[in-house]
Amino acid sequence: MDSTRAFIKDAKRVIIKVGTAVVTRSDGRLALGRIGSLCEQVKELNSRGIEVILVTSGAVGVGRQRLRYRKLIHSSFADLQKPQVELDGKACAAVGQSGLMALYESLFSQLDVASSQLLVTDNDFYNPEFRMQLCETVNSLLDLKVIPVFNENDAISTRKAPYEDSSGIFWDNDSLAGLLAMELKADLLILLSDVEGLYSGPPGEPHSKLIHTYIRERHLGEITFGDKSRVGRGGMTAKVKAAVLAAASGTPVVITSGFATDSIIKVLQGERVGTLFHQNASSWVVPNEVEARDLAVSARECSRRLQNISAEERRKILLDIADALEANQKLIKIENDADVAAAQQSGYEKSLISRLTMKPGKVSSLSKSIRILADMEDPIGRVLKRTELADGLVLEKTSCPLGVLLIVFESRPDALVQIASLAVRSGNGLLLKGGKEAMRSNAILHKVITGAIPDTVGKKLIGLITSRDEIPDLLKLDDVIDLVIPRGSNKFVTQIKASTKIPVLGHADGICHVYVDKSANMEMAKRIVLDAKTDYPAACNAMETLLLHKDLLKSGRINDLIIGLRGEGVTLFGGSRANEELDIPLAQSFHHEYSSIACTVEFVDDIHAAIDHIHQHGSAHTDCIVTEDSEVAELFLHQVDSAAVFHNASTRFSDGARFGLGAEVGVSTSRIHARGPVGVDGLLTTRWLLRGNGQVVDGDKEIVYTHKDLPL
Amino acid sequence: MDSTRAFIKDAKRVIIKVGTAVVTRSDGRLALGRIGSLCEQVKELNSRGIEVILVTSGAVGVGRQRLRYRKLIHSSFADLQKPQVELDGKACAAVGQSGLMALYESLFSQLDVASSQLLVTDNDFYNPEFRMQLCETVNSLLDLKVIPVFNENDAISTRKAPYEDSSGIFWDNDSLAGLLAMELKADLLILLSDVEGLYSGPPGEPHSKLIHTYIRERHLGEITFGDKSRVGRGGMTAKVKAAVLAAASGTPVVITSGFATDSIIKVLQGERVGTLFHQNASSWVVPNEVEARDLAVSARECSRRLQNISAEERRKILLDIADALEANQKLIKIENDADVAAAQQSGYEKSLISRLTMKPGKVSSLSKSIRILADMEDPIGRVLKRTELADGLVLEKTSCPLGVLLIVFESRPDALVQIASLAVRSGNGLLLKGGKEAMRSNAILHKVITGAIPDTVGKKLIGLITSRDEIPDLLKLDDVIDLVIPRGSNKFVTQIKASTKIPVLGHADGICHVYVDKSANMEMAKRIVLDAKTDYPAACNAMETLLLHKDLLKSGRINDLIIGLRGEGVTLFGGSRANEELDIPLAQSFHHEYSSIACTVEFVDDIHAAIDHIHQHGSAHTDCIVTEDSEVAELFLHQVDSAAVFHNASTRFSDGARFGLGAEVGVSTSRIHARGPVGVDGLLTTRWLLRGNGQVVDGDKEIVYTHKDLPL
Repeated sequence: MDSTRAFIKDAKRVIIKVGTAVVTRSDGRLALGRIGSLCEQVKELNSRGIEVILVTSGAVGVGRQRLRYRKLIHSSFADLQKPQVELDGKACAAVGQSGLMALYESLFSQLDVASSQLLVTDNDFYNPEFRMQLCETVNSLLDLKVIPVFNENDAISTRKAPYEDSSGIFWDNDSLAGLLAMELKADLLILLSDVEGLYSGPPGEPHSKLIHTYIRERHLGEITFGDKSRVGRGGMTAKVKAAVLAAASGTPVVITSGFATDSIIKVLQGERVGTLFHQNASSWVVPNEVEARDLAVSARECSRRLQNISAEERRKILLDIADALEANQKLIKIENDADVAAAQQSGYEKSLISRLTMKPGKVSSLSKSIRILADMEDPIGRVLKRTELADGLVLEKTSCPLGVLLIVFESRPDALVQIASLAVRSGNGLLLKGGKEAMRSNAILHKVITGAIPDTVGKKLIGLITSRDEIPDLLKLDDVIDLVIPRGSNKFVTQIKASTKIPVLGHADGICHVYVDKSANMEMAKRIVLDAKTDYPAACNAMETLLLHKDLLKSGRINDLIIGLRGEGVTLFGGSRANEELDIPLAQSFHHEYSSIACTVEFVDDIHAAIDHIHQHGSAHTDCIVTEDSEVAELFLHQVDSAAVFHNASTRFSDGARFGLGAEVGVSTSRIHARGPVGVDGLLTTRWLLRGNGQVVDGDKEIVYTHKDLPL
Repeated sequence: MDSTRAFIKDAKRVIIKVGTAVVTRSDGRLALGRIGSLCEQVKELNSRGIEVILVTSGAVGVGRQRLRYRKLIHSSFADLQKPQVELDGKACAAVGQSGLMALYESLFSQLDVASSQLLVTDNDFYNPEFRMQLCETVNSLLDLKVIPVFNENDAISTRKAPYEDSSGIFWDNDSLAGLLAMELKADLLILLSDVEGLYSGPPGEPHSKLIHTYIRERHLGEITFGDKSRVGRGGMTAKVKAAVLAAASGTPVVITSGFATDSIIKVLQGERVGTLFHQNASSWVVPNEVEARDLAVSARECSRRLQNISAEERRKILLDIADALEANQKLIKIENDADVAAAQQSGYEKSLISRLTMKPGKVSSLSKSIRILADMEDPIGRVLKRTELADGLVLEKTSCPLGVLLIVFESRPDALVQIASLAVRSGNGLLLKGGKEAMRSNAILHKVITGAIPDTVGKKLIGLITSRDEIPDLLKLDDVIDLVIPRGSNKFVTQIKASTKIPVLGHADGICHVYVDKSANMEMAKRIVLDAKTDYPAACNAMETLLLHKDLLKSGRINDLIIGLRGEGVTLFGGSRANEELDIPLAQSFHHEYSSIACTVEFVDDIHAAIDHIHQHGSAHTDCIVTEDSEVAELFLHQVDSAAVFHNASTRFSDGARFGLGAEVGVSTSRIHARGPVGVDGLLTTRWLLRGNGQVVDGDKEIVYTHKDLPL
């Protein structure tokens, strides 16, 4: 749910305006499917105790369509030869209105819902008595669980062209709906449209973005409307006008699609569909997706400046950040304490609170590691390859930052500091989204860190995103964000991967295997297996499946290992063979990450069966063989197609710090770009620089390629 | 359109069966929106002259729902205290049927369509006279443009539990629909379901895939059905049974979703929605997505074997391929000639025919380059980094193949040979999809090449995909395909990028700039600009925009350059400044790739304005500066954030071969994995191999990390 829309869930009385473009199809006929879905949703709201008032359009067009058909049926061939006159609009309205109401009636009656018709004109509203009476009538209808269906009484309206001026008390069905919202004290007005909501430009154009919350100061002037709907008369301009007026007088408004079968229900559940208008919106902190894009674009611009200052200047920024953190230790503690207290009050899990808490000395140790990072060799602009292409034509492949990273992480505020310093070190712009439980800690850390970034680079190098609502918007920005690094549960990573076209660095599953060969030193096998499983069972590099050579069973050599696992409290589940031989429960699936003190055990016939098992059921993260036979070991090392493959060492070594990569960005099970534990390297890409003195290709007729490697 | 479904467009009489799960909601009420959409689609088909017969379900459930409501209304409080008896099923059917028909009647009447009710029982069909009469009645109705709506006459059926056995002439509405299809000689039967069609496993499970064409021999036994729909009685098993029977007796059947608002229309347009059953399907060549997956999985397995044979063996495969190509030159020529002749007959463009034609000597030159590739240093298993982590614990980062590549390319059959040999060289499995105009050439080349792959690796290392219909299925296989390399037009690459989650290596736009600084040697500038624009204007590395320092205008130093461009026939378009100063037409956009003898010209104030222009409007492919000022040159080289940045050399050098990368895989404008011209390196990833002697992490308490770089 969108947090700024929580209030909608309390709405008791809702007005839904259904425009012409929603109730009629492009051929002029009624859109039966959409009207049917509308009635179903109204019934649904009704049965939840929400009062619904409909304002419908569409009568004129429907009447015209039916009158044309009738006229055709009653025409002689001679009649058809004459020039056809346009049908009278008011006659069309009269005919259409009765057809439309008949449809509502029969649809609602299928749902055991009673409906009623209320036709009004602008003139009526000049009469205060009318207005009072109207309220009473509507209240009575609603008390009787009858749906009031409003429409302008076009057939008897005395306006010549009622929709061409917007004078009067109301001038179209959008403004009628707005007027009724005020008169009938509705809690919410929903304007159904033929598009998702209000866009920053004509809907359908690539840079037009849906605006989730309309903020007058920000959007007025910025928005360019597309064409009015082909069959409607109001169009988006009319809707926005009505919405702004209604919102200003106290009724929140949502403009959303009338084409989806469940958009009304979603709006009432507070979901982020359509565009919300609210009188207080200006004072809300609602960065919308237009702003998300701005954040990303600014981060990219700052990152370009960052890579263009000298290595020494970049080093100084890191040192300044380290100093600033230490200088603000007290402030950081106050904010972190506040987060921790709030989390304790909310009854969060102990493990979360422990990850949230910045222990004494944490800031100093973070500053210390930033200083180590500052003294690292500058990774930007390194020449990785230098080739003479032809005489006087020299090509260099140099390292450079990726551009803009989006990191979505959970509770740990220290992750913010680590990632921000890695981004500075690698010259990347950064968008950070932390957990809301660490909101205050993240805010102060972000403030302190960006405070140390000089204006020559720009503080927008690192953007902090505060609302979870923005993640979907950010994940759409595949043209300005280069890499997403999610840090969290498998489910979380999988979700992120499924919902973005931006490359994602990370791993969803960590199903690591240890295979104990028949030639293993069983003492060593026990040590490695116990470490791989119990050193940190929740880690992605912990062992989940233990594969045992079948000969180990016969000789009884595994007994000590099994006893050891049980002794450490490890719950064992078996494949079909182990289930039988060891009398342990059957594992549900070989592709299972326990992330706890449990593991799967299975027997395999030989090294080849072990490799097949790993390929079939593993997640290509880290797999290990324990054997004294170096030939078998090399077979395993070369054939297991995982990011990390170990011989006689615990899977727990699969980690950036232990691999000596300095700071760890994450572990990647993707095969593209970076694989396994990823350090600063994973945040870099390359550029080709070519220096010549006027060489041209000219069909490769004259140039003599030398392609000589030059020293770096 | 799916080519195997072309026949559907000729269907004149269609039976549509609407199941309970489609007409009723989970709360038992009628699904008004779905029924409305159904009626709209029926009207649409009708107005296209297609005869539609409906078979509907749903009466019993709807009747039960309404009777419960009525009973509640007429109950006293005392009544409600008594235990409630279940409502009589036949009474429910009677009540439901009248409500359902009333709804169809009122919906169809809104569309000026007449409908009719036909209630039948199994018993009726034992009477041959009845069957004859039924056909006559239905034909009369259809002649009068009336929609026949069939249902089983549940209310008067004498069966106790008519749906629990499947004896009789029909036993549920699915079999009734199948029976009617035969009796009424329908051209197509559509069974609407609550899922997209028939899946290879329970719908919703990650590995379940929609089957587009049911092939009895392939799918029987393989398919596991999910649960029956909660509110329906038929479920998927019943639908498949009815579909198989109807198809066998000559009526093609499509099972598709009744939840989408346009699935019937799509089916009738021959689009690939739902599952098709056809009596001849077994003899069709319809590799479906299950087979696409098999191809990819086999390619991966073969690639694993390929990387495990020795470098010398891999070299030999390449040499064998080179020999085989030469040995089969005549055969290849025959097939290529046939393709060329067919293309000429079809009136294809000259440029396509020229790309399609394998000129004399082409095969020899391809064989020659394969032999060069064979003699290249083996790129697999190279140790890129070696680190001692701790005493006796040594980590290696080694190169390895990505896995499975999918290459989608147009006309040139020689591309197949190049790509296949690159895949063998880099140890990757390969799926190839060429253009249909080169079908015979590709088939023979594929056959010759895979003929040279030994069984120790497997011929399925390289799969050839023949139908364009399969591309969407292949693009979904992000778990078994590692990289997609599209080779074709910008539009083609953009489409591929938009429709897959698999990483795509390539570039959509190549908007390359040449910036001529005020300090440029204008003679050199002219040479470079002319080469960049005219050497091969359709190439992605051709210049599209020429940026000129404003001072060059004042001094008149650009005259010779402009004259030179015009002399070569280059059409010039200007930004606002050049438009005025040079009197050339205004360019529509700075982000435009002409790919022809035309370019955009604009003046900029200085080097910074040039860089900003390139960042704002370019595509980060290749950009060049012409200047004699080395400080300005370095500024440009370091600040322009493109894949390739050149000083005093033509943009046309941006090419794998000219860069000395050996064979070129493509040019990447992505920043992830590979950037700029990509050679074999772009087809490789890395693995971490760790060799120890029993080391464990154990909280890092005892291990002493050394992190010492070791020599390679």
